[in-house]
Parts: sequence; structure tokens; C-alpha cells
Amino acid sequence: MTDGLNFTVSATDQLARTGTLRLPRGEVRTPAFMPVGTAGTVKGMKPADVRASGADIVLGNTYHLMLRPGAERLARLGGLHAWMGWERPILTDSGGYQVMSLGDLTKKSEEGVAFASHIDGSRHMISPERSMEIQALIGSDIAMAFDECTPFPATHEVAKASMERSMRWARRSKDSYRGPGVVFGIQQGSMFEDLREASTEALHDIGFPGYAVGGLAVGEGQAEMFRVLDFAVPMLPADKPRYLMGVGKPDDIVGAVERGIDMFDCVLPTRSGRNGQAFTWDGPINIRNAQFAEDPTPLDPNSPVARWSKSYLHHLVRSGEMLGAMLMTEHNLWFYQQVMAGLRGAIADGTLSEWARSFRLRYKSSRN
Amino acid sequence: MTDGLNFTVSATDQLARTGTLRLPRGEVRTPAFMPVGTAGTVKGMKPADVRASGADIVLGNTYHLMLRPGAERLARLGGLHAWMGWERPILTDSGGYQVMSLGDLTKKSEEGVAFASHIDGSRHMISPERSMEIQALIGSDIAMAFDECTPFPATHEVAKASMERSMRWARRSKDSYRGPGVVFGIQQGSMFEDLREASTEALHDIGFPGYAVGGLAVGEGQAEMFRVLDFAVPMLPADKPRYLMGVGKPDDIVGAVERGIDMFDCVLPTRSGRNGQAFTWDGPINIRNAQFAEDPTPLDPNSPVARWSKSYLHHLVRSGEMLGAMLMTEHNLWFYQQVMAGLRGAIADGTLSEWARSFRLRYKSSRN
Repeated sequence: MTDGLNFTVSATDQLARTGTLRLPRGEVRTPAFMPVGTAGTVKGMKPADVRASGADIVLGNTYHLMLRPGAERLARLGGLHAWMGWERPILTDSGGYQVMSLGDLTKKSEEGVAFASHIDGSRHMISPERSMEIQALIGSDIAMAFDECTPFPATHEVAKASMERSMRWARRSKDSYRGPGVVFGIQQGSMFEDLREASTEALHDIGFPGYAVGGLAVGEGQAEMFRVLDFAVPMLPADKPRYLMGVGKPDDIVGAVERGIDMFDCVLPTRSGRNGQAFTWDGPINIRNAQFAEDPTPLDPNSPVARWSKSYLHHLVRSGEMLGAMLMTEHNLWFYQQVMAGLRGAIADGTLSEWARSFRLRYKSSRN
Repeated sequence: MTDGLNFTVSATDQLARTGTLRLPRGEVRTPAFMPVGTAGTVKGMKPADVRASGADIVLGNTYHLMLRPGAERLARLGGLHAWMGWERPILTDSGGYQVMSLGDLTKKSEEGVAFASHIDGSRHMISPERSMEIQALIGSDIAMAFDECTPFPATHEVAKASMERSMRWARRSKDSYRGPGVVFGIQQGSMFEDLREASTEALHDIGFPGYAVGGLAVGEGQAEMFRVLDFAVPMLPADKPRYLMGVGKPDDIVGAVERGIDMFDCVLPTRSGRNGQAFTWDGPINIRNAQFAEDPTPLDPNSPVARWSKSYLHHLVRSGEMLGAMLMTEHNLWFYQQVMAGLRGAIADGTLSEWARSFRLRYKSSRN
């Protein structure tokens, strides 16, 4: 607890673990899925409904919040938790990924990244020190080290230089952090085992209470991601939480948990919900399909939106009604948390491989 | 109760009345405000939250529902109440107003209106008989007679011809209705007292359990609307509910209640909520205004969204976040129902003129 983080593994099953991350604002059951609350809101959901879906922690985006409402303003307003009405733990990303994908006229240097806001063109600079300052002002419980998500594909040379800069930035992140939470380091190294090894050693020298695997889910595909996880995860210390950033589809998550990952975040359940995709145990379905126009059954009899039929959801989504996006999002977040609960239970029972086999058999049988 | 409708006036205060409309699916406290659920959903609201705002009844739009999902499909799915999850009373309009404002290539005749769907261009016909059939298939508790909303301004000659056709359609509506609910007649006659009188006599000859005042809130302005209500409302039978269609702003509603109206519907609280306008006792405010960017106070300390500050709502609406539209809508529907509750209480206490004066003094003091 000296670093404000208490992580207990209560059971393991081969490489998988289940446990509890204890933070001052609440406990996080692992493996955990963190809904993404980009701009201070999990899109289309009230915080009480996010909690009711089973979430213990949500993710906030430093890049979005620094531009709107602004980190200093957010601090004056009492921090992100009070402002958005989510009093449980919040993890923030560093802004490094989104400044490169969303910022305009970006100029990268050893100091950091200068960029123009995609909202109003205003000029900003984000560096390891500024990222940590923003995450502290926001009041984040888990701040992520500022790094560069190495583009994919990358040559060994490019990936090495990128990883080494990220490791220098990781040290600056740790050294400059003066916030209320803890800082996680991020392993980089693209798809190369030797670079992942070097990155892990660098992070270990700095010392973090938790470690993320970065630079995956960037277009490499599930098989390649699993191949990298097979060597990248066992390098990380067993007694610290391991967070796979930006992942993923339900079957990606199941495979990553089998490889020892404890934490996930992804926009998929929320974004695809808004677009009409519902996740079910039989695989994803597109509720816009004509076959659902008169389907009186719910997406799942246990879903929090089981009160409404596929027919009604089909109508709402096809009509562009806000309630369609709201109910689809609520269902998908619930489904993701059901997968996490299933994984945690199976690990505790020592039956993960059976659970995962049965999950994949049914999930992959989908027509999608 | 022979006509399925029991309306009791429990107190009057000058021309205003308060009472209860008893329908098989529940009681409606009058004066009542009906949130608009255009396409089978009050936009951005779950039915439980609509109810929690204080609504006893919602309005559905025949034109939208006949096109999507279609009346026969809706009937096969068990009707609108079950489908949308609102088990309390529903009133449906006749489709007459919207077919003229939204339909393409409309062709009006004594038979009815032929038109092309604004969604997919498909050809449809809506007549008094078809409107009543659709409203019955939907399962509406209160169906509205099919009529023509006379355009404004209209000459006496045009208004007379339009009103007379509406009265012929009113008889066909009443005669053809075979539904589970009741049918209300609609008084027309534009701004002309003699035509309103003639329309009322025609409706009275047919006989309805409730009467609407139609053809107002069409651009004539509040003063002119009140001038028409001053003569049009007292013509209607005192023992039947009186519904002013499509009205209105909070101060329109207060003035209309003072003139004897019992029921209202309007898209204003929902539509303007989505656009960033919040109703308050001090008048409407535009939450997008820069002055709210760092305002830590709620819209109203008693609002169901009082948990969130104006600053947060400002951020959500400016960022185009769905949650902004959701929370603003929830607040506005609550505010409208607070106005109705205030009106009912004041009528019961015999203090309506004081209540209305005090309301207007504060509401009009707004900078808007």
C-alpha cells in the first residue's frame, strides 16, 4: 500500500489470475473491463447505469478532457469524479495515443508533442510532465505514463527507437507525478520479443505499481496479438496488475485473460452499440437487419434491457432514436461485464479452459 | 363510464379546473401535460424516467407509427404500450397534422389524404376511417378524430370550408371507430368566433367524451391564441375534458389553464432540451452560453438532474454528447410537470390568480 495500490491475486488457473485491486475510491475485481468515458461521460449512459452494468472503474481520456473542459477548470470544479458523478475509480490514458490520432499539425520531439486541437485549432503541447500534471488535476486514480504507441507495422529499428523514447518518457512521467493516484508504466516494443524484453527491464528499473501492454490492437490481428502476448505478458511481474490497452472483442478478452491479463478497456461495446451491433453469447448481431423487424424476443433474457424486444430496438436504431443507442449501449456494457464475471468465476473454480472452450464454441458459431 | 372515460372535476377556480381523468390503464391528473413520444419513444428517455418526471399519459404520433413500424405490425407485436414499455395511458393524434407537414406529394380530397412517406417515398392513404383503424391497432387509449389543421392565416371562407370538412371527417371518425379506447372530437374554425361556435355545435351533435381545441399554436402568437381561447373554450361542455393541442411554452400553458384547458402536449421540453434550452422558474436559459462553462450550480436544486452542475451540462451539450440531451430532456419534462402540479395545487386551493401572477413575474423576469 506504500504506492497507494493493493493488488491481491486470489486464484490462478494456468497463466490466468483473478483478484482484487484495492484503490481508495473502491475495489476493482479482476479481470476487469473498464468502459470508456471519453469526454467525461460513458456515451449515452448515466453513471448509475454504468455501475449497474457491473463496472468497478471507468476510463477517461486525457486528450479530450484537456481540450474540453480543460484540466485546470476541471480541478477548480472539484475533479472529474464529482463533475461527472462517478465516485468510483477512474483510470486516465496519457493522451499520447489520441494526440497522434486526433490532433492536427502534430510536431513530435524528445520534449513531447505540439499539436492543434481538432475542436478549435488552438495550439497545445503535451509532454510527459504536462500529461502527468493533467491527470493529477483531473483527479485520476490510475494515471498512465506518457508514451508513444508505436505505429504498426514498424521495422525493428523504428520500433526500437520508439520504445526507447517511450522508456525515457516513462521515467519523466514517474519522476514528475504529484497526483492523488498511482502511475502505471506501459510496455512497448511492437511485435518484437527482444524489444518487449528491453522495455520491461527499463520499466522495472523505474518501478511501477502496475504495468500495461501497449502497442497492440493496432491492426495486427488476433493471432499476432496472442503470439506477442505469449511472450510479452510472462515478462511482467506476477504481483502487479497487467492492463492490455484498447482491447477488445469479447473473444480477444477471453484469450488475453488466458494469457495473464487483468485489465481491459475498449470503445467497442459503446461505439458499436450506437451503431446497432449487439453482443450476445451467440456472437454479435446487427439489430438493423430486417430479420429483427418483428422479433418479439429480447437480446438476452437476463439483459437489463430485456424489457424491450429486438423488434423495438430494431425500430429505434433504424429510426435514429437516441433511446436505441442508449439501450444497445446498456446491453453491450452488461454483456461485457457478464463475460468478465464468467472469466473470474471460472478462474476461481479452476475451470477456465473449459469455460473458454465453451464460450468460443458458442460465440464463434455466430453467423458474423 | 359508458364511453370508457370518467372525468371528475374536483375543484374550479374561476374558469380553471382541476380533476381526474380515469382510464382503464390509469388516472390522469388534470391539468395534464403529455410528453410527446413521436415514434414510440419520448426521445432520450426511458419510460420509467418519463413516469418519474410526473407524467400520467404520453402522446404517440399516428403518422410516424403507421410508416414505421406500421400499424398492423404494431398490433401483431401486442400494441404500442407493451412494445415501448409504457403501460399507462397513451393518446394518439390522428395523423392529419403531420401528413400535411411531413408527407410528400400530398393529395387532399374529401376521402382523405394520399401521400408519399418522407422516409422511403412509399405511397399511403390516410382517411378518417384509416386513421381510426390505425389508432385502434396501436391500442391508443384516447384516439383523436381525423381532421385538417386549418393553415394560418386563413380567410373566413377558407377557414369555414376547412372546418366543415373536418366536421364531416369527425362524424366518419366517430362512426368508424372500433378500438379499445375513446375518441375525442377537435374544434376548428381558425381565429373566427362564429366558426368555432359552428364547429362546437357540429361536434356536440356527434357527441364525444372529450374535446380538443385545434388549429391554434400555428404561428398566431400568444395574445391572439388567448383571445381565441377566451371565446372558444367556454363553448365546450364543462363536464368533458378539454385538450389544447400542441401547446406550448410554460406561460402559454398557465394562461390556457386559466381559460379552462385541462390537457396539453408539446415537443418543446424534449426538443428544446436536445438543443440546449433548459426551462427554469426564472425563464428559459441556453446552457451553451459561455457564462455556464464553470457554473457549479444545478439547473434547479430539486431537479432529478440536480446531481450535475450547469458546467457539466454545458460541456455535454457543447460536446454533442448524448447524455447532455438525455439530462436536459429529463430536467425539462420534470419542470413542465412541476408547473402542472403547481397549477393543480393552486386551483384546488382557490389561489390560481396569485400563483399565476407570481409565476409570470418570476418567469418573465428572465433575460430571454
